[in-house]
Amino acid sequence: MAKLFDKVVIVGIGHIGASLARVIKRDGLADRLVTLESNPEHRAVAVELGIVDAATGIVADAIQDADLVVLATPVGTFADLTAEIAPHLKNGAIVSDVGSVKMAVLRDVGPLLPAGVHFVPGHPIAGTEHSGPTAGFPELFQGRWCILTPPAGTDEGAIKKMVALWEAAGSTVEIMEASYHDQVLAITSHLPHLIAYTIVGTATDLETSLQQEVVKFSASGFRDFTRIAASDPVMWRDIFLNNREAVLEVLQRFTEDLTALQRAIRWGEGDKLEELFSRTRAIRRSIIDARQA
Amino acid sequence: MAKLFDKVVIVGIGHIGASLARVIKRDGLADRLVTLESNPEHRAVAVELGIVDAATGIVADAIQDADLVVLATPVGTFADLTAEIAPHLKNGAIVSDVGSVKMAVLRDVGPLLPAGVHFVPGHPIAGTEHSGPTAGFPELFQGRWCILTPPAGTDEGAIKKMVALWEAAGSTVEIMEASYHDQVLAITSHLPHLIAYTIVGTATDLETSLQQEVVKFSASGFRDFTRIAASDPVMWRDIFLNNREAVLEVLQRFTEDLTALQRAIRWGEGDKLEELFSRTRAIRRSIIDARQA
Repeated sequence: MAKLFDKVVIVGIGHIGASLARVIKRDGLADRLVTLESNPEHRAVAVELGIVDAATGIVADAIQDADLVVLATPVGTFADLTAEIAPHLKNGAIVSDVGSVKMAVLRDVGPLLPAGVHFVPGHPIAGTEHSGPTAGFPELFQGRWCILTPPAGTDEGAIKKMVALWEAAGSTVEIMEASYHDQVLAITSHLPHLIAYTIVGTATDLETSLQQEVVKFSASGFRDFTRIAASDPVMWRDIFLNNREAVLEVLQRFTEDLTALQRAIRWGEGDKLEELFSRTRAIRRSIIDARQA
Repeated sequence: MAKLFDKVVIVGIGHIGASLARVIKRDGLADRLVTLESNPEHRAVAVELGIVDAATGIVADAIQDADLVVLATPVGTFADLTAEIAPHLKNGAIVSDVGSVKMAVLRDVGPLLPAGVHFVPGHPIAGTEHSGPTAGFPELFQGRWCILTPPAGTDEGAIKKMVALWEAAGSTVEIMEASYHDQVLAITSHLPHLIAYTIVGTATDLETSLQQEVVKFSASGFRDFTRIAASDPVMWRDIFLNNREAVLEVLQRFTEDLTALQRAIRWGEGDKLEELFSRTRAIRRSIIDARQA
């Protein structure tokens, strides 16, 4: 790959930030790669692992001369972060992010950026349940989607550079309206996580003896939920707080459907159960056909 | 392994039946292995694959002289099946099953068995989302649990033989009260399946364009639910109808917890969300420590 940027700054060197940093290093996409990171331990790990050229907690040092700044902290931090970063951004710099919600990012980041800075919000649909800089690996984005939600009128050259970056990471890029992104992700990601957190929480409230059995016999279905429910707590808190309307809307639909099933079980309506259970099989086949399984 | 039985009959040569048959063949656990199967195609496949020595749809032919009869059809069929089978069972024969609920099996099968026949209900905690005889493989039970729920007073020799059979399959056997089994499985297996079926059902009701996006971006969480929601519809219909009380009880707890989370999202109570999301991480670690991940 040819170089895309002179200087790139990744703000927050966690699971996603470290994975993206490794891509940039691997492919030589930037002359200089710096992380702005508030946690000194993570800074030390990032430098030691050679993920970045330099790690600093000082905003001005990091942001100065940057061609690209990628926010990779929990989305709840974006407003304050942007206020700190904005005065140091050079004319023509690109600001992007990897947050799982996009309307809130447009709201929190966009208005604080100086004129002449290009804003290209992004969301790589990738990740594991692991956290921190040591959990980063460059193949994380390979074969995955990356959604970009640039506001109307965004500089085409800036969008093209972000597309090139994510394509170098092995992702297929899709440009989308931020509000549509939030609606789609509410059902594909936020609701599944909310439900997984809930069911695992329900299990942790059981009496101790029963809880041990749950762990023991978790392979019968429960286990699949615990992986999701082990995702980063602060990141997910911020996602739910920042995609409230879309999550509550889809949660309402889910609750209605669950109540209907509950009623079918109570009244022994086997035909209704079988009809639904047959219908859901088809979606699995679509996912396998779409090579997302 | 030494031979355990002269003649074994597996009733229903689906995913689990075929997997157990392959274990019995592999280890020479029976002189003669027959399947009683109502579906002529499955009979043909089972014989062609060499999973069994013979396949028949005629009850008397199959059951005659059997030392062990394992019911491996959906649990809703057990009452009628047992009524047909019972007259042909020889004195000293063992009847077992692989059903995912156990109180209903005690209720439906036990009273119909003649005196002198030993009843050792069982439940291997194993399976995939695939169905049918071609989906069977002998390693399915390797490293998994198998729960036996023999009623009080069951012949010790019969229990020992069933333990030996499942240990040959690579499973660890646990003896448990049927009612406790149903309570544990309601949370570890039945509720997760119900919720997975519901969320995938909710997605299938979305407008077509949004549904395509759900498939496309399913890797962000949704995908993990679709595997479970692709499980056999009739088998799962019967499980919910036959473990009604335990499922409704745990579903009630789940719904309360979900409502509390919904409220926390609506009112922006980030601390409550973070507290729960941190707690659920611990259960994942327990499962990894228990080598069930």
